Amino acid sequence: MSLAAGPGLGPGTRPAAHVRTTGTVRIVGTGLLGASIGLGLRALGVDVVLHDPSPTARALARDLGAGRLPGEDEPEPSLVVVAAPPDVTADVVADELAAHPHAVVTDVASVKGRPLQALLALGPGMGELLVRYVGGHPLAGRERSGAVAARPDLFRGRPWVLTPTSGTDRWAVDRVRDLVLDLGAVPTEMPAQAHDRAVARVSHVPQVAASLVAARLVDAEDDAVSLAGQGLRDVTRVAASDTGLWVQILGANAGPVADVLSALREDLDSVIAALRSLDQDADAPGARAALARSLDAGVRGRARIPGKHGAAPTSFAVVTVQVPDEPGALAKILAAMGEAGVNLEDLRLEHVPDRLVGLAEVSVLPAVKDRLEQVLLAGGWTLAG
Amino acid sequence: MSLAAGPGLGPGTRPAAHVRTTGTVRIVGTGLLGASIGLGLRALGVDVVLHDPSPTARALARDLGAGRLPGEDEPEPSLVVVAAPPDVTADVVADELAAHPHAVVTDVASVKGRPLQALLALGPGMGELLVRYVGGHPLAGRERSGAVAARPDLFRGRPWVLTPTSGTDRWAVDRVRDLVLDLGAVPTEMPAQAHDRAVARVSHVPQVAASLVAARLVDAEDDAVSLAGQGLRDVTRVAASDTGLWVQILGANAGPVADVLSALREDLDSVIAALRSLDQDADAPGARAALARSLDAGVRGRARIPGKHGAAPTSFAVVTVQVPDEPGALAKILAAMGEAGVNLEDLRLEHVPDRLVGLAEVSVLPAVKDRLEQVLLAGGWTLAG
Repeated sequence: MSLAAGPGLGPGTRPAAHVRTTGTVRIVGTGLLGASIGLGLRALGVDVVLHDPSPTARALARDLGAGRLPGEDEPEPSLVVVAAPPDVTADVVADELAAHPHAVVTDVASVKGRPLQALLALGPGMGELLVRYVGGHPLAGRERSGAVAARPDLFRGRPWVLTPTSGTDRWAVDRVRDLVLDLGAVPTEMPAQAHDRAVARVSHVPQVAASLVAARLVDAEDDAVSLAGQGLRDVTRVAASDTGLWVQILGANAGPVADVLSALREDLDSVIAALRSLDQDADAPGARAALARSLDAGVRGRARIPGKHGAAPTSFAVVTVQVPDEPGALAKILAAMGEAGVNLEDLRLEHVPDRLVGLAEVSVLPAVKDRLEQVLLAGGWTLAG
Repeated sequence: MSLAAGPGLGPGTRPAAHVRTTGTVRIVGTGLLGASIGLGLRALGVDVVLHDPSPTARALARDLGAGRLPGEDEPEPSLVVVAAPPDVTADVVADELAAHPHAVVTDVASVKGRPLQALLALGPGMGELLVRYVGGHPLAGRERSGAVAARPDLFRGRPWVLTPTSGTDRWAVDRVRDLVLDLGAVPTEMPAQAHDRAVARVSHVPQVAASLVAARLVDAEDDAVSLAGQGLRDVTRVAASDTGLWVQILGANAGPVADVLSALREDLDSVIAALRSLDQDADAPGARAALARSLDAGVRGRARIPGKHGAAPTSFAVVTVQVPDEPGALAKILAAMGEAGVNLEDLRLEHVPDRLVGLAEVSVLPAVKDRLEQVLLAGGWTLAG
């Protein structure tokens, strides 16, 4: 069965060349993710109909160009995207499967196991409906939220996990893959449980750790906080995220997150024990080896994180240059690089407290590092450490 | 007493205008910090004599321009900077105080309490010598090390903590403050114990947390690691640092770090307990409130970290723009900003896996955000979410 010419192909849609998604796409929930999906699909000419329990929210998303509101004689959607809050996702998915018997239904919740269990728990009749359900999770969250922060390119180049089960029909999976590809994202399939264990490691546990480190500053003296450097800023950046949303996410992935945090606590206990030993006796046998083991595991784990274009994160050379705090200064530096044919692999602008100057850390391929330094020095720029 | 015209004013030094440091400065230990101090002082015309137990290391620092090697009839130094590894700092400071009876001695070790205790433990005769010792810690560490990574501007704009005791002579403190100011750093005085508690919070505990989070990736499946985003990269960036150096630092500050980690573990236990409750019963009473408390403390702690120029970290608006992966692309974007008079407050280049495109997150004052977006869209650039 193909939905390409099925009942979902509504009037007024004019798919452009190379657009895979056909028919009307119904988006339920018009927050950051739902509105961004709508904007992305509308940019391709796909017909998008918006729904949100809040009339204000759905009107806002419509006004922003994310789609239209349903009319009379509304055509059946070919695809329903549930972009509701995580704690109501399962209920909404079940309702949409029942209400639209020919549509494929997907969701964007950042946890996949618990919604699937909740759907299966709704009764023996669900099995038949669930052949049309494909769990999804675009890894494109931001610290901002709401339709006003939505962008048609939010998903471009990002991983988008799909979690079909053995009972999911393949054409339904392909339909959601089409959506993902149309939005410029990179589809990856894995079981729901594997997804949840993965995001516990790469997203949920880092979030908790950042919050716990940042919480140590609440009672710190001003003098202490004034010593903060880029390391602390980096470790705690995500701790500024929305508490309410993260309570939902962590609660929905409670088991896998607790498992990874428990493993982390075992390491933490061994670090604390080693430090207590060293505090009593600077030559305590084995204590330094225990510290080294924990730190070395961190070095090895960090090395596994893919860098830009999938390259290893350590493969670039870094040149640090002072940037005067005035419009266009960094542009001139980068223009000099561009004229010299030096390609920028990464760039970080570092804060310098109390000084009207920045430090730009420019990452380049090691082979061009010397040339870049010569170009910058010849241009009168000051290199820093 | 002033050392300005004292025995330390050696021949051949020609202090420039506004240079506060006078006489010969002896630097013991020519790694990253020692060599950078030498380069900074030489740029001001100050006479610098280098010492390192390794003949190769001191010759390298000399060749890099960090100072000269001692000659015959060597003048007495006015100031000795001990830039030795943390675990030998106290012994080297004691030797230098005894060998140079007219010199002020400072050090740059990142832990201050234990070296001071070790010096006091050397015997009752130390009290008299220690009036000339001022503990110091420039907060300018990098992931790279060694004299080859040294820069004269390494300390520019960075905090540099001084930890005099009630027994320290004030002229000695002023002598070291002169050095700090000459190197462009910002001197801050606090007791050694307060310093150690502060760096435990803002540097040592974040380092341990980053390592423990990164260690969770060692056994992760490739699929899981491929979902890594900027959040995980930020949290774990410092985990790539040198294990051997960090074992020394953590060991030297074992008590304060263990105290802060123990407080962190209490919070961690409460998070794990809440998650276990939610895993058993999604409506477990009080569990979500416990999660919210921990996350909210993180939000409040994060808000205390000063941003660029001392501003609050949340005071900038962010515009995200796509950057094609070709030389000069980012430069053109920033040039457009500069021509429009929009000042860049911060910039982060974000990796986009598997795509030859980058996302630049440009931070600007909120008042100019709309204008910046118009300028970029008018220039044909693509804004992203």
